[in-house]
Formats: sequence, C-alpha cells, structure tokens
Amino acid sequence: MYSVETLQALFLEHLIKNSLKNTPTTLYEPINYVMSLGGKRLRPVLLLMAHNLFDDKNVENALHAAMAVEVFHNFTLVHDDIMDCAPLRRGKPTAHTKYGINTGILSGDLMLILAYEHLSKCPNEHLPTLIKIFNRFAICVCEGQQYDMDFEQRNDVSIPEYINMIAMKTAALVEGSLEMGAILGGATADEAKKLASFGKNIGIAFQLQDDILDTFGEPEKFGKKVGGDIVQNKKTFLLIKAFELAKAETRTTLLNALAENDESKKITVVTNIFNQLNIRAIAETAMEHYLAEGLAMLDAIQCDENRKKPLRNVALQLMNREH
Amino acid sequence: MYSVETLQALFLEHLIKNSLKNTPTTLYEPINYVMSLGGKRLRPVLLLMAHNLFDDKNVENALHAAMAVEVFHNFTLVHDDIMDCAPLRRGKPTAHTKYGINTGILSGDLMLILAYEHLSKCPNEHLPTLIKIFNRFAICVCEGQQYDMDFEQRNDVSIPEYINMIAMKTAALVEGSLEMGAILGGATADEAKKLASFGKNIGIAFQLQDDILDTFGEPEKFGKKVGGDIVQNKKTFLLIKAFELAKAETRTTLLNALAENDESKKITVVTNIFNQLNIRAIAETAMEHYLAEGLAMLDAIQCDENRKKPLRNVALQLMNREH
Repeated sequence: MYSVETLQALFLEHLIKNSLKNTPTTLYEPINYVMSLGGKRLRPVLLLMAHNLFDDKNVENALHAAMAVEVFHNFTLVHDDIMDCAPLRRGKPTAHTKYGINTGILSGDLMLILAYEHLSKCPNEHLPTLIKIFNRFAICVCEGQQYDMDFEQRNDVSIPEYINMIAMKTAALVEGSLEMGAILGGATADEAKKLASFGKNIGIAFQLQDDILDTFGEPEKFGKKVGGDIVQNKKTFLLIKAFELAKAETRTTLLNALAENDESKKITVVTNIFNQLNIRAIAETAMEHYLAEGLAMLDAIQCDENRKKPLRNVALQLMNREH
Repeated sequence: MYSVETLQALFLEHLIKNSLKNTPTTLYEPINYVMSLGGKRLRPVLLLMAHNLFDDKNVENALHAAMAVEVFHNFTLVHDDIMDCAPLRRGKPTAHTKYGINTGILSGDLMLILAYEHLSKCPNEHLPTLIKIFNRFAICVCEGQQYDMDFEQRNDVSIPEYINMIAMKTAALVEGSLEMGAILGGATADEAKKLASFGKNIGIAFQLQDDILDTFGEPEKFGKKVGGDIVQNKKTFLLIKAFELAKAETRTTLLNALAENDESKKITVVTNIFNQLNIRAIAETAMEHYLAEGLAMLDAIQCDENRKKPLRNVALQLMNREH
C-alpha cells in the first residue's frame, strides 16, 4: 500500500513527465504555465487513494485517469477566470491575463480535449465506464457554473438550490475522481458508488468550509483576503441563510449593505448580521452534517479499517484547514 | 444501401430527437439555438456515407458518431465566433451576441463534452479506436486555429505552412469523420485510412475553393459578400501566393493595399494584382491537385464502383459549388 506522500510524489512526477513540447508553442506554453501553477492536486491524489484502497500495487494503472481529472480541473479554472475577469490565480497572472483572452479560450478548449486524451490511455476494459463517469461530472460542472452565474442575478436563492449548485460545480468532480479510482482498482460498482458518495459529501462540506473561512477565517492562515465573498455579494451559504432568517429590519439593513461601496464598512455590517443570526454555527452544523454523511459512506465499504484511514484523514484535514 | 438523401433525412431526424430539454435553460437554450441554425451537415453525412460504404444496413450504429462530429463542429463555430468577434453566422446572431460571451464560452465547453457523450454511445468494441480518432482531429483543429491566429501577425507565411494549417483547422475533421464512419462500418484499418486520406484531400481542396470563391465567386451564387478575405487581410492561399510571386513594385503596391481603408478600392487593387499574377488559375490547379489525390484514394478502396459513386459525387459537387 502506498502512503499519501508517495502517491503525491508519483503524481507530480507523472505531471512533469507529461509537460508538453508540442507546437504551436503559442498554444502549448499557456497550458504548461497553468499546469505548473501548483495547487493541492487534491482530485488526482484522491483518485489514486481510491485506487489504492482496492489495488495497493499497480498505481501506474491510475495515473492517466489522475492526469485527466487534474487537466480537466485546470481547464475549468482557465475558463472560469475568463468569465470572472480574474487577474490573479494562486498569486500569479491568470492565463488570459498573460496570453490574451483568445488564447485563454483556445488553450482551455485544448486542455478539455487533452483530459479525454489522458483518459483514453486507461485500460480498454474500463474505458466505457470511465468515460461515462467523466462525462457525467463534466456536464455537472458546466451546469453548476451556469447556476452560479444565474444566482448572481437573483436574491431568492434557497439553501437546497445552493447545495445542489455546489454539489454540481465543486463536489461532482471530487465524487467522480473517487469513483474512477475505485473502478480502476477493481472495486464493484456498489463499492465505487459508496466511495463516490463519500467524495460528493466531503466536496459539499469542503465548499461550505470555504464559505465559512472566507468570512470568519484568520487572515494569516486563510491566505487570501477575508470578506471577499461579502464584497462581491456572492450568494454563499452564509448570505442565503441570512436572507432566509433575517426579519424586517435586519433584512433591510442587509439589502442596503449589498449596495454599500465602502468595502470595510460592508464587511463589518454583513458580518455583524451573520453574528446576530448565528450564521457561522448554522453553517458549521451543515458542514459537519455533510462530513459525517461522507465518513459514514466510507465506513460502509467492506475492507480493513486501516486501509481506509488515509481517506478519512484527508477528509478531516480538509475540514480543519485554515488555508 | 441508403441514398444520400435518406442519410441526410435520418441524421436530421436524429438531431431533432436529440434537442435538449435539460436545465438550466440559460445554458441549454443557446446550444439548441446553435444546433438548429442549419448548415449543410456535411461532416455527419460524410460519416454516414463512409459507414454505408462498408455496412449498407445498420445506419443506426453510426448516428451517435455522426452527432458527435456535428456537435463538435458547432462547438468550434461558437468559440471561433467569440475569438473573431463575429456578430453573424448563417445570417443569424452568433451565440455570444445573443446570449453574452460568458454563456457563449460555457455553452461551447458543454457542447465539446456533449460531443464525447454522443461518442460514448457508440458500440463499446469500437469505442477505444473512435476516441483516438476523435481526440486526434480535435487536437488538430485547436492547433490549426492557433496557427491561423498566429498567421495574422505574420507576412512571411509560406504555402506549405498554409496548407498544413488548413489541413489541421478544416480538413482534419472531414478526414476523421470519414475514418470513424468506415471503422463503424467494419472497414479494415487500411481501408479506413484510405477513406480518411480521401477526406483530408477533399477537405483541403474545399478550403482552397472557399478561398477562390471569396474573391472570384459570383455574389448571387456565393451567398456572402465577395472580397471579405481581402478586406480582412486574411492570409489565404491567394494572398500568400501573391506575396510569393510579386516582384519589387507589385509587392509594394500589395503591401500598401493591406493598409488601405477604402474597402472597395482595396478589393479592386488586390484583385487586379491577383489577376496580373494569374493567382486564380494557380489556386485552381492546387485545388484540382488535392481533389484528384482524394479521388485516387477513393479509387484505391477495393469495392464495387457503384457503391463509391455517392462519395465521389459529393466531392465533385463540393468543388463546383458556387454557394
């Protein structure tokens, strides 16, 4: 059985080996740039860990699928950054800022195709199933992104609608990564589904934690500016819940705050309302609920408890992160 | 054996049956809009004809692959129109003009994924091969598009570079469509490659014909404004060849014409230079060369001559088109 650190190292080695020397360099250089920006490589490592749970020897069978999900994830970042007009990603200029919007669009398109190209290198016996899983989450991610954009225009988004949106935009890829790893490791369809459900639930919990930290995280540990979601009027769990609970006067104060131009005043007013309404605790309870649901699905898989420990630890670490 | 008209009708029926009722409608409506704009449906029908050459009964086996190439083609149009800032396509507003750039990007992304989703419905036995072919041409199309954008910044593009670019941007999809149809029809790899080569050559010839008609077509028959490529300084076969052949003084006149603001004057001056240098005949000879190469590959396939007639006729019709 491989340790998490070994799986991370093997994936990074595979990633570097797969950096692209193709022409035109005007198209491939942006892709290498994006892929080298780093990040936690969470999805491919979870895929390798899922594989490891059922097959503790032949990790090389899962590396192509791991690349597929990482390239896909980075494709979504490139196109999302164009849609959001985001100048920076991980402290560096975004691809379209560095190379222009047209090359950003086209490099992103090619990354999506290259994700399928990596996927096509998986063993033929699993390919039809893997493609179905991959297509399912890829469609979900696009639909989730569109819901997220649609929500910007609405003030009546409900909590179930929000959970459904993050289940699609964020969790579906974690869910699919774990399912693909399990299938490649020889899991039964039922076991793979349980692991997928673990992934979906921790994916939702992860996003809720992200919502909480964006307002309540400690700036030094969180690594980005606290209150960014509030400044942008982002429809997070916190804001939606506050709208749901706020009575007449508080509701008016909240609506007025959305139109406030003074950023630090806006953050203070909205955070105060969140505190009055006990929003942080409600969000943490929801997060704990999804985490527990996820861990219960992991428990339900029939195998040596020790083998499941790394996945359990990753889930717990993700929730306690302050970065 | 199915007639071309029957294959066209069967494909259109399949296309309508596959129009999308999914949510969010803000994402799917643009896709239905784009797919309903029409066009010749050339690539899917060629795929069905290639299938028909080797299997004249089970057309339903090839309909999913035909949808895959048509959806892919339309994805490229949606994203190309964003990159070109094109307001119209087939006389109607382009997707991003009608629905906004962000939805244009995201709908295009989803179309690319849906193309793979259609592909995944092909018989499992052929799936690994089909995905390899599909990825190959999809990568080519992106690379070709980037070369085309790169050429805009250059005045020293050579004819071989240009032919290579259109082989990737335009012909690779025709090539791949025919190869996929042949594989699905049970052709040997060798036969499929010959049909692919037929497709590649007629694809190149088709683009050269397009270049010629853009300057020398009759406006009523061509259906779009004659001289559009000249106005945009597009690096077509005609312009590249003219730069290759023009001596000192003519070359200066040509370079000056590129900076001319009066559109009709610009068209007149450049067309006159093309005429002086005999560019139309040279381009037609090149086009005929690729057409002949393509037909020779079709001839080389061992089967009843009558069965190959529809493919030969389509190739000839495409070259004599004035629309």
